[in-house]
Amino acid sequence: MRRDDLVARDAADPILRRDRFTLADDLIYLDGNSLGPPVRGAVRRVADTMQTWGRDLVSAWNSAGWVELVEDVSGRLAPLVGADPQQVTITDSTSVNLFQALVVACRLRPDRPTILLEEGGFPTDRYVARGVADLLGRTVRAVPRQQLVSAVTGDVAVVTAAHVDYRTGHRLDAQTIGATAHDVGALVVWDLAHTTGALHVDLPAWEADLAVGCAYKFLNGGPGAPGYLWVAEELEVPATIRGWWGHAEPFAFADAWEPASGASRFRNGSPAILGLQPLDEALRVFEGIRGEDLNARAEELTSLFIDLIDEHLADAVEVVSPRAPEQRGAQVSLRHPAAYPVMQALVEHGVVGDHRPDDLLRFGFAPLHTRWTDVWDAVATLQDLLTSDLWKDPKYAAPNKVP
Amino acid sequence: MRRDDLVARDAADPILRRDRFTLADDLIYLDGNSLGPPVRGAVRRVADTMQTWGRDLVSAWNSAGWVELVEDVSGRLAPLVGADPQQVTITDSTSVNLFQALVVACRLRPDRPTILLEEGGFPTDRYVARGVADLLGRTVRAVPRQQLVSAVTGDVAVVTAAHVDYRTGHRLDAQTIGATAHDVGALVVWDLAHTTGALHVDLPAWEADLAVGCAYKFLNGGPGAPGYLWVAEELEVPATIRGWWGHAEPFAFADAWEPASGASRFRNGSPAILGLQPLDEALRVFEGIRGEDLNARAEELTSLFIDLIDEHLADAVEVVSPRAPEQRGAQVSLRHPAAYPVMQALVEHGVVGDHRPDDLLRFGFAPLHTRWTDVWDAVATLQDLLTSDLWKDPKYAAPNKVP
Repeated sequence: MRRDDLVARDAADPILRRDRFTLADDLIYLDGNSLGPPVRGAVRRVADTMQTWGRDLVSAWNSAGWVELVEDVSGRLAPLVGADPQQVTITDSTSVNLFQALVVACRLRPDRPTILLEEGGFPTDRYVARGVADLLGRTVRAVPRQQLVSAVTGDVAVVTAAHVDYRTGHRLDAQTIGATAHDVGALVVWDLAHTTGALHVDLPAWEADLAVGCAYKFLNGGPGAPGYLWVAEELEVPATIRGWWGHAEPFAFADAWEPASGASRFRNGSPAILGLQPLDEALRVFEGIRGEDLNARAEELTSLFIDLIDEHLADAVEVVSPRAPEQRGAQVSLRHPAAYPVMQALVEHGVVGDHRPDDLLRFGFAPLHTRWTDVWDAVATLQDLLTSDLWKDPKYAAPNKVP
Repeated sequence: MRRDDLVARDAADPILRRDRFTLADDLIYLDGNSLGPPVRGAVRRVADTMQTWGRDLVSAWNSAGWVELVEDVSGRLAPLVGADPQQVTITDSTSVNLFQALVVACRLRPDRPTILLEEGGFPTDRYVARGVADLLGRTVRAVPRQQLVSAVTGDVAVVTAAHVDYRTGHRLDAQTIGATAHDVGALVVWDLAHTTGALHVDLPAWEADLAVGCAYKFLNGGPGAPGYLWVAEELEVPATIRGWWGHAEPFAFADAWEPASGASRFRNGSPAILGLQPLDEALRVFEGIRGEDLNARAEELTSLFIDLIDEHLADAVEVVSPRAPEQRGAQVSLRHPAAYPVMQALVEHGVVGDHRPDDLLRFGFAPLHTRWTDVWDAVATLQDLLTSDLWKDPKYAAPNKVP
């Protein structure tokens, strides 16, 4: 393979939409799994919103469609997770949504003592799960994610895990977990933070009960964009936090809480209008992409990266992510004892990935904006750095606060 | 009194900062209690943030100070509620924060069955309180807000109310409620949604335990801006929702949840960076204003409005808000049987207040941007409308969805 082949492949790629993003041409951005880049439409959209706020003030809730905005944007998200638009809503944060989902699930299984989760998943998942267990008098059992299927026993009220692991990119077989859990009467709550936007999923086909996720990673919604919550159609349960925006008729200011239908009942305060605008624009960029094509590109990009690492850097780094494409997300992590300074040097040389403690170099391959040549150039740059002493410069050893 | 006197008073007013807002000169905006207007700095600030996001991408968390932003903005809010900056944090929404506050309070009083709240307060307050009661096996007792003091009995775990009522503008005597509640061992949770930014408060002097509020009303933070939560220094309790951003060291990705100090432990997901930017600019406009001056101006603006209504419209409308200045917020509500069409007509004639079911005309007098002449002109316009048949035009009878 030559780089020129990849140039040609970029030019002809039916999924790649690099020109819809504001990314500089010479930047190799492999950190869309931490913070996705803005789409071009987002800048104008946010500027317009600021103008509208100043001009129309409170009447903008009607004149600019702010009242319906959260419904509109949720509707754009729905196809990416195989959802009926009624069953998914953008709201709050992943943490708050996970809290609501786990409380709801536990209350549906009042006699089961256990919340089953994966060991070593994203910290929020276990902090929230332990908090829910503490609140409701349940216990948390944590097992390695590969053992979740065998650990779902009759005492389990709910099993929760990240579909794609934030460190290794390991992808779970959600369908098997869903079927196994339901066989023993347990519910399943998915964290899709590192999935949606990079991999199309089909929550009803997974037999999922609830799912939550994050819109500032592969969905490119912007820093601190609101999260989302999906609920299976058959779960007609009350929300735990009952904010006025989850009411069937918020503007009736009614005395009794009457839940909105579907996922909307899990909304709480007034929607974060400013935060929804870039996300709305970002989701438009996914329009017309078939789920299987998105997934195929994620798998091929990561496969190419692993192949090139094997070819050029097999002795220098260890591929931590699964080698079977269907067992990983749009992410590859490499182990290197000096991962932190190596990543700092890499960033300074135009290849942005990130570092996760202790020794992981993490690279995300967002199917919509990662070019085939980015994969080639990233490996070439990493090879240059590792075969020189450049990354040992003390300036790369500073403390890391990047989320 | 002549209008010219008020023109002179506007020119000399030490609190009025109309020029810091983008409000059109000919607009009389008396709805800052629903959605505050943008300050001039906010537009540029948000545009800069969009540029920074596109240019610096994930590294903006450090390069642009996003990691510290929530702390910075919370610090600017602190003096408005008499808080140590450690004890207040901007986070989530009023609904979510109220949920957390009430759960925390109930868990601190495990043997007390009752959540005491006001009848007819803002719907979210009672929806959330009933949800918490349902979750924790408590009961809710609702009494008229004027009877809260006598209703705080030994069975009460927590008493919660809006300091300023959203319909009538009635302001509670928070200090008496705090002292009475503590006398019988109950905790107090305040909803400051219609207070902060219009009235300076001193939460420690109130003997408050927790407080929550809203940043898109008198704080001018923008549509759907994040809410805030204050916790008394002596309440060293765990958070209920334990998101990673409430951890003492989020970027350590530690296994165990170790709460951040003060109110920070009640943070959940990554901060809404875009939503924080206009709020940061808006809070800067409060700098240098003494609490007693803010309160005095709120009281004088509303007094002038009531005096002018009494003088010109005593037969046409009923003043619903308390006549004693210390018993009301920066808001006056008038009762009129055709409140909805009258408000529509008023808005079309350049005076923006709002309507609340069934028959209330609601006017907010934000001390930072409401001119003395606005008060005069609003009453004059209302008088013109009510003494003509203009408001009876069928075009003003459309359904209302404005929050």
